[in-house]
Amino acid sequence: MFNTVAVVGATGAVGRIILQLLEQRRFPARTFRFFASARSAGQQVEFAGQRITIEELTHTCFQGIDLVIASTPDETAAEYLPSAVQAGCRVIDESGYWRMHSDVALVVPEINPQEALNAKGIIASPNCSTTQMVLALKPLHDAARVRRVIVSTYQATSGAGLQGTADLLEGSRAALAGTDYQYQVFRYPIAFNAIPQIGSFKQDGYTSEELKMVYETRKILGDDSIQVCPTCIRIPVSNCHSETINVETERPLTVEEARRLFAATPGITVVDDPANGQYPMPSTCDGSDDVFVGRIRRDLSNPNCITFWCVSDNLRKGAATNAVQIAELLARHAAK
Amino acid sequence: MFNTVAVVGATGAVGRIILQLLEQRRFPARTFRFFASARSAGQQVEFAGQRITIEELTHTCFQGIDLVIASTPDETAAEYLPSAVQAGCRVIDESGYWRMHSDVALVVPEINPQEALNAKGIIASPNCSTTQMVLALKPLHDAARVRRVIVSTYQATSGAGLQGTADLLEGSRAALAGTDYQYQVFRYPIAFNAIPQIGSFKQDGYTSEELKMVYETRKILGDDSIQVCPTCIRIPVSNCHSETINVETERPLTVEEARRLFAATPGITVVDDPANGQYPMPSTCDGSDDVFVGRIRRDLSNPNCITFWCVSDNLRKGAATNAVQIAELLARHAAK
Repeated sequence: MFNTVAVVGATGAVGRIILQLLEQRRFPARTFRFFASARSAGQQVEFAGQRITIEELTHTCFQGIDLVIASTPDETAAEYLPSAVQAGCRVIDESGYWRMHSDVALVVPEINPQEALNAKGIIASPNCSTTQMVLALKPLHDAARVRRVIVSTYQATSGAGLQGTADLLEGSRAALAGTDYQYQVFRYPIAFNAIPQIGSFKQDGYTSEELKMVYETRKILGDDSIQVCPTCIRIPVSNCHSETINVETERPLTVEEARRLFAATPGITVVDDPANGQYPMPSTCDGSDDVFVGRIRRDLSNPNCITFWCVSDNLRKGAATNAVQIAELLARHAAK
Repeated sequence: MFNTVAVVGATGAVGRIILQLLEQRRFPARTFRFFASARSAGQQVEFAGQRITIEELTHTCFQGIDLVIASTPDETAAEYLPSAVQAGCRVIDESGYWRMHSDVALVVPEINPQEALNAKGIIASPNCSTTQMVLALKPLHDAARVRRVIVSTYQATSGAGLQGTADLLEGSRAALAGTDYQYQVFRYPIAFNAIPQIGSFKQDGYTSEELKMVYETRKILGDDSIQVCPTCIRIPVSNCHSETINVETERPLTVEEARRLFAATPGITVVDDPANGQYPMPSTCDGSDDVFVGRIRRDLSNPNCITFWCVSDNLRKGAATNAVQIAELLARHAAK
């Protein structure tokens, strides 16, 4: 139980869902305060039957707050969250900025809850495309040791924030009408297109989004020997990321064993009855908190590999849900 | 030079482009005849300044025809093309039905032209998702021997024919308007969604489309030891298939070597300057006859692998262009 919980970035695509989840899941706190940039400060939001005014994020706003859940751009997290830690807050951060810092915990509660409980400073929530993959990898890693992962993503526009989805919808409307549309966040039209770039290009021709899938996976699973080769692609889906995941394990797994391992993992739902047209899709996973796995099959090209399809709501388990689950973990612990 | 060339399935998504290509590329023939099902027979089409009436496809329609280019559903190809062979026609078939028959040549002209020239019966054109991949693999295979391929596809709705694209556009309009739309060819809504099924489910949890990528690749490259693990996904793009392709070669290739090999291959265009935002996309490859390759990079997880992104117009090089190129090859040979 916390006295005062703050949500920073409360008006963003993820922030809005964090508020919904705190309300729906009756998060145990006496007071909730919501912060955003000066542009959004002063707006009112409905929360648990009250109207709460959005306050402006400042370096001195964290006094008297026990827990901060922040979902902001990287530069905002870089600038403001150290002030929250200094003010004595527990801090859960959705941004990419702090995740790989050596003194920051990077947590998926089903995988490494203890690191959240032990954290002295910021607790980071992983990148959306990483979270769903790593949750699916975890039971396979525990059972058979994951050696190598080749992953291709099919990422939704909501990962680029509210304007990302607006770009998709307005861009699609314009394309269907044969008119022009000036995209705000995408470099190229995303309507009826696929863009092989998410984030910026870093070393070896990989993007920042792809390298997150390499390094965050190792940190969360606590195994730097896991090899990951990712390709991240933006597609014209408004919400839910999908991934084709090919996993090589040290010990070969049968499809039946992999299916059992997935099914026994909290947070994973197996939807895998292809003969009856049952597999996860963005349209069926939107709004759910779980990671959905289907099309589980042996890799025809290597007996130590299995391959599957993984879909999850990137704003939920990929972001808001994971952060709120970390907060709930801290609250349960604080209650003891 | 042929006297009489027939196009069967002339009113379909691929058939229309075959007609365009025959006209634009001034295919050397004295007479062109166009066939379709009874439903479309009697329609007129503009071709090279003439109006040509679509004739009905029958078992006896092939008399006096030298070359047949057919783009029809599998069952139509199964039923009618043997009559064309019996009538003495050279036959190029776009359908999936004949490709893996042992006495049928499966041809990509840049790869195995001699098999088209030697063919006694039907010459098949490969599946769209296979053609672009195998053309990209060919120079790597010649230089370093391809051992294993892991491929994930991002396939356009035009691969499901004219109604596939109508489904995408009408379904998108309806989704944006908040109204219902009854999809004709897709099992689930394709607008703003990703569907992990193309074709029907066959053995080991793989779809017919995926198994085509396994078996056709081996047949075209003439190497049954090549291992392929495909996952085929339909995305809301109207035209051009994209693929992430991870290739393991016997001899390790550097990125520079792979790029040189791609660039030196007729039919491949390298678009690979990520620092300047240059990579292939459906929006930029639509209407082109080449296979486009970009994001060429080393696989971080295995020194014997490179990985890249491949886009091609599935109605062109994936279908019509490849068939017309085979026809041109036969015409050049017939002229000698």
